[in-house]
Amino acid sequence: MDTRFLLDLAILLFAAKMFGVQARKLGAPEVVGEIIAGVLVGPAALGFVHESDFLSQMAEIGVIMLMFEAGLGTDLRKLRKTGAQATFIACAGVFVPMIFGTLLFLAFYGISGQILKALFIGTIMSATSVSITVAALKELGRLDGIVGTTITSAAIIDDVIGMIVLTFLLGMTGGSDENSAVVIGKSVLFFVLAVGTGFLVYKIFSWLDKRHTHTRRIPIVSLCYCFLMAYVAETGFGIADITGAYVAGVVLCNLSDAEYIERRVDISSYMVFAPLFFTGIGLKTSFAAMDAKLLIFSVCFVITALVGKIIGCGSCAGLCKFNRHDAFKIGLGMMTRGEVALITAQKGLAAGLLTSEFFTPVILLILTSSIITPILLKQEYTKYPTD
Amino acid sequence: MDTRFLLDLAILLFAAKMFGVQARKLGAPEVVGEIIAGVLVGPAALGFVHESDFLSQMAEIGVIMLMFEAGLGTDLRKLRKTGAQATFIACAGVFVPMIFGTLLFLAFYGISGQILKALFIGTIMSATSVSITVAALKELGRLDGIVGTTITSAAIIDDVIGMIVLTFLLGMTGGSDENSAVVIGKSVLFFVLAVGTGFLVYKIFSWLDKRHTHTRRIPIVSLCYCFLMAYVAETGFGIADITGAYVAGVVLCNLSDAEYIERRVDISSYMVFAPLFFTGIGLKTSFAAMDAKLLIFSVCFVITALVGKIIGCGSCAGLCKFNRHDAFKIGLGMMTRGEVALITAQKGLAAGLLTSEFFTPVILLILTSSIITPILLKQEYTKYPTD
Repeated sequence: MDTRFLLDLAILLFAAKMFGVQARKLGAPEVVGEIIAGVLVGPAALGFVHESDFLSQMAEIGVIMLMFEAGLGTDLRKLRKTGAQATFIACAGVFVPMIFGTLLFLAFYGISGQILKALFIGTIMSATSVSITVAALKELGRLDGIVGTTITSAAIIDDVIGMIVLTFLLGMTGGSDENSAVVIGKSVLFFVLAVGTGFLVYKIFSWLDKRHTHTRRIPIVSLCYCFLMAYVAETGFGIADITGAYVAGVVLCNLSDAEYIERRVDISSYMVFAPLFFTGIGLKTSFAAMDAKLLIFSVCFVITALVGKIIGCGSCAGLCKFNRHDAFKIGLGMMTRGEVALITAQKGLAAGLLTSEFFTPVILLILTSSIITPILLKQEYTKYPTD
Repeated sequence: MDTRFLLDLAILLFAAKMFGVQARKLGAPEVVGEIIAGVLVGPAALGFVHESDFLSQMAEIGVIMLMFEAGLGTDLRKLRKTGAQATFIACAGVFVPMIFGTLLFLAFYGISGQILKALFIGTIMSATSVSITVAALKELGRLDGIVGTTITSAAIIDDVIGMIVLTFLLGMTGGSDENSAVVIGKSVLFFVLAVGTGFLVYKIFSWLDKRHTHTRRIPIVSLCYCFLMAYVAETGFGIADITGAYVAGVVLCNLSDAEYIERRVDISSYMVFAPLFFTGIGLKTSFAAMDAKLLIFSVCFVITALVGKIIGCGSCAGLCKFNRHDAFKIGLGMMTRGEVALITAQKGLAAGLLTSEFFTPVILLILTSSIITPILLKQEYTKYPTD
């Protein structure tokens, strides 16, 4: 067996921990340090570690565990209370950046025959990846507050809406075999089935929990359920695996052992998987093939994407009677982009709607948003602490 | 991303836990249940899960963590006390099964022109893989006793001697570019360097430990050191990665936070990695291509291999003034075979010393020894409890 992956693990975990600690010393969240560690040891700088299937799969487990923990820590009453608002915020979070992105592309590359391409750039901007925000809120101890719950559920809904928009757009260009109605149907079916089986699963776990409280069995079986839901969501229903993991966590969040499960998963997560997810973002970064026009476009793309979410989600949250500071926090929390944006870009490439140079602005957006969101969130929560 | 690996994880972890619990209820060690779970969901029976690079790498991390924990739990005084005896036992553990295996092959397939092949079958028999024994002793709480320490260190030395014998044999057939002297030199160099750098590493960790006792930093950085040593041992010195991991554990075993590190690593290990190692043994099992002669040979091969270790190591332990029961335990503990036997077989295949049908008896040996050793050890320790 080629043991190179062991060296990769040693380098990434060590760098992540060192930079994480330094970031915290400088007053920034630890995840920021871990992402920067990835950039530094990755191909963009030192080149010690490169992406591999193994590392991507470990990173995926990391983000799945993160979202599972977020689900486990959910306060169901708050989730119900914020559900309608979150849906509203999610819609704004999809459509405002989408319009901004479309206009930006048209401004740069002109209108003639480019409408679909422009809409596609807009779609890439619409995809929120909440995992970094979840990690930042967790570090701040604010994940289960009203604002935290709203952001998490809005991001989940955003993901689903984004998927539908993407399918619609690909359908228009023949880049997808499915039509939007099927996608909508599958998404609805997933949530219906998740809630339906969720009650049953919850009953079984409650029974197990009473018989075997605080044994290893409960966290391991819970983790199996989480992996299964992640798999079923992505493979069976075309919904992101992290959404499945989050829903699995929500199903189990009222168990009396929920905290015990979360703690066990958290230790596995912070020892190995989560740092690989954060450094993985850095590993994806490379700055090859950048000319002046693309550079300017990239900078505008990043700014528009960030501002789009703040304006879209923030103003919408304001309309939902969040106060000014909380609305801003929600806008900030929704700014983060991640692998969904990359996947969307890849699909666009496959459908001929995008050329590969546009990966650079997308990666820059992921990196920038992943680094500045936690910093700004921490500042806001320090200045204006709320639930 | 193909999310099939998530389904594999869910199935394997669930099956491992369920069968582990059942095994314990029946009075057998949990690892036995986990191995059987792997056989059952793997290609030999239900075929739900097949081997993959990802699963092999996860399993490798599992066994590395296991050996790291074994190292961390080491009592240095006992290790020093048993060192000479362990070396003696290891030598007997290599050469007695080797002679037995050679004779067995000659008895089945005749002498003419087969001496090298016969010696090679003997070499396969000589390789101890201590990980299953370590897991069983850990479950029994006996890993850090005199018997447990002797078995662990003898198995480590066995591994090194086995490697030298293998290289010698491959060298004779031109199947290896290295010669035995180089292999011996590299092995010695590894241990010299490990001890040399070990003192420095221990000093650094002691200093870190005093400043940051019970923080996440210590276990994570320790794990990085473990992965690094595993990588360096295998890639740089041709020694098994698990030997490197064990040595890393021994270096850190006197830290005041050693138990804290072990606990953290243990949780990551039992939540995900260790069950994947145990079920992985089961996944490797398949019973295709078996004719009557091979079946009979396989059964004899397994019995000879097991008896060879008991006679070799057990009688040698008796000579080292262990009492009858402890000597028998040491013989039992050294019976387990694992991936080293498979790797040896693969090298033999590549060198033309072995045909692929001989993989079946090797796999059977791994499976049988992995299942019966923990059961017998538990029985012996229950009947004749010693340190």
